[in-house]
Amino acid sequence: MKVTIIGIGLIGGSMAIKLKASGFASHVIAVDNNESHCRIALERGLADEVMDLDEAVAISDLVIIAIPVDATLKLLPVVLDIVKTQAVMDVGSTKQLICQAVADHPKRKRFCATHPMWGTEYSGPGSAIASAFTGKAAVICNAVETDNDVLDIVKKLYSNLHMHLVYMDAAAHDVHTAYISHVSHITSFALANTVLEKEKGDNTIFELASGGFESTVRLAKSNSAMWVPIFVQNRENVLDVLNEHISQLKKFKACLEKENYDYLASLIENANSIKRIIK
Amino acid sequence: MKVTIIGIGLIGGSMAIKLKASGFASHVIAVDNNESHCRIALERGLADEVMDLDEAVAISDLVIIAIPVDATLKLLPVVLDIVKTQAVMDVGSTKQLICQAVADHPKRKRFCATHPMWGTEYSGPGSAIASAFTGKAAVICNAVETDNDVLDIVKKLYSNLHMHLVYMDAAAHDVHTAYISHVSHITSFALANTVLEKEKGDNTIFELASGGFESTVRLAKSNSAMWVPIFVQNRENVLDVLNEHISQLKKFKACLEKENYDYLASLIENANSIKRIIK
Repeated sequence: MKVTIIGIGLIGGSMAIKLKASGFASHVIAVDNNESHCRIALERGLADEVMDLDEAVAISDLVIIAIPVDATLKLLPVVLDIVKTQAVMDVGSTKQLICQAVADHPKRKRFCATHPMWGTEYSGPGSAIASAFTGKAAVICNAVETDNDVLDIVKKLYSNLHMHLVYMDAAAHDVHTAYISHVSHITSFALANTVLEKEKGDNTIFELASGGFESTVRLAKSNSAMWVPIFVQNRENVLDVLNEHISQLKKFKACLEKENYDYLASLIENANSIKRIIK
Repeated sequence: MKVTIIGIGLIGGSMAIKLKASGFASHVIAVDNNESHCRIALERGLADEVMDLDEAVAISDLVIIAIPVDATLKLLPVVLDIVKTQAVMDVGSTKQLICQAVADHPKRKRFCATHPMWGTEYSGPGSAIASAFTGKAAVICNAVETDNDVLDIVKKLYSNLHMHLVYMDAAAHDVHTAYISHVSHITSFALANTVLEKEKGDNTIFELASGGFESTVRLAKSNSAMWVPIFVQNRENVLDVLNEHISQLKKFKACLEKENYDYLASLIENANSIKRIIK
């Protein structure tokens, strides 16, 4: 199958590695405004060639849109405008506005809205890795709005990436990801800023940083060009969860202020039950 | 050298593995109220034998106190009461109250206050690992209050654990660890509680959990018996940092509420500079 990947970055590039290795993609075409990314993608063999959008889509069986969600919102209708029988999928971290943007498009059924639940704090094709995706969930949203042959291609693709499928509507997806991904990033950004603010007056503060700190601030290295559009598009859900998170933090604060250590222990013990979920 | 380890858990047990392997400890004696921990320590070869406190201290060259910081506060003066020429060190996550507790003790100079900056979210001797400590910092506090021969033993010990030394006074240590460790734990506990609260009404919430979420909530598995006493002893510093962290989170909230996305991008770009610190 000929596959065009629009945006040959961390996600697009990591997909390319595995789709080529598994034989799913016989030929990968990269479409990307970033010349340096195109060069790296060719050098690393992530893409076989680089083309303009129109000619790439024209000769492809599948078009994967793997660019920031604000750019996806603009480009997806343009891609569907030139699509004939091709399948189109996105991999963005928000789903509701993207599905709304093409809800009335005559080629809507050639599009499948998806979100593979994998990423790192790095970006660009230089960070693409073969071990991406394995064992994680891939979400397919609003599947009834997609042609069955397109769905079959997407299912086969995620099977080749060793992901398991989860189906939900776009609205539910955006609530879930606000909890499970978007607010984790805000927490991490805010924690980094807390410590960096202190560092201005005390440049030895990081001497003691160890694994626990690294783990909680790792996501703070994530790219604003990717994350601002996610927060914009999922603004209301993220605000709801952020308010809840701040109120949970204030419970810890109140325990310390009032020296209510039994309640503090019960808050920690409740948090410990996350062991059920993550091993 | 004969070494007594009081509290043969994650830290004490991991120390035992390396101190025996490196030849620093010719004989390790475990002192622990937890019979199951003693049994596991003997089975895993972390300790050569188990003894009562008094007899263990009497025949040892070095006594390592590796128990929760509330228990250390009580036990350290008791240990110094029975010490003759032995060296004594603790490994607790707070330092100021512990140093104050023995400031006027006649054997104060036989004690060295330390904190190796390593841990995991697990506890007990079953979680002790040989790869612990390597490459991390070990803090020695108020070194001038310790006899040189005791300091030399502690330096040699941390060298055998492949740690580098950082010297600071106990008050500075407690401020630093509030930033770099204690508030990370509160953030993680609170994030876990935020998501667990949502799960009560939606039991599919964790289907999408991936690496980013796991990274930020990993510390939420940490033990309340260890962490409540740390928060109690470092209450004022932790409250200061927690207030700062909540105000940093509120900046993100204000950006979203006011749709001020330029400022949101600048907050994220500021957080990105944590790359300087953690690779």
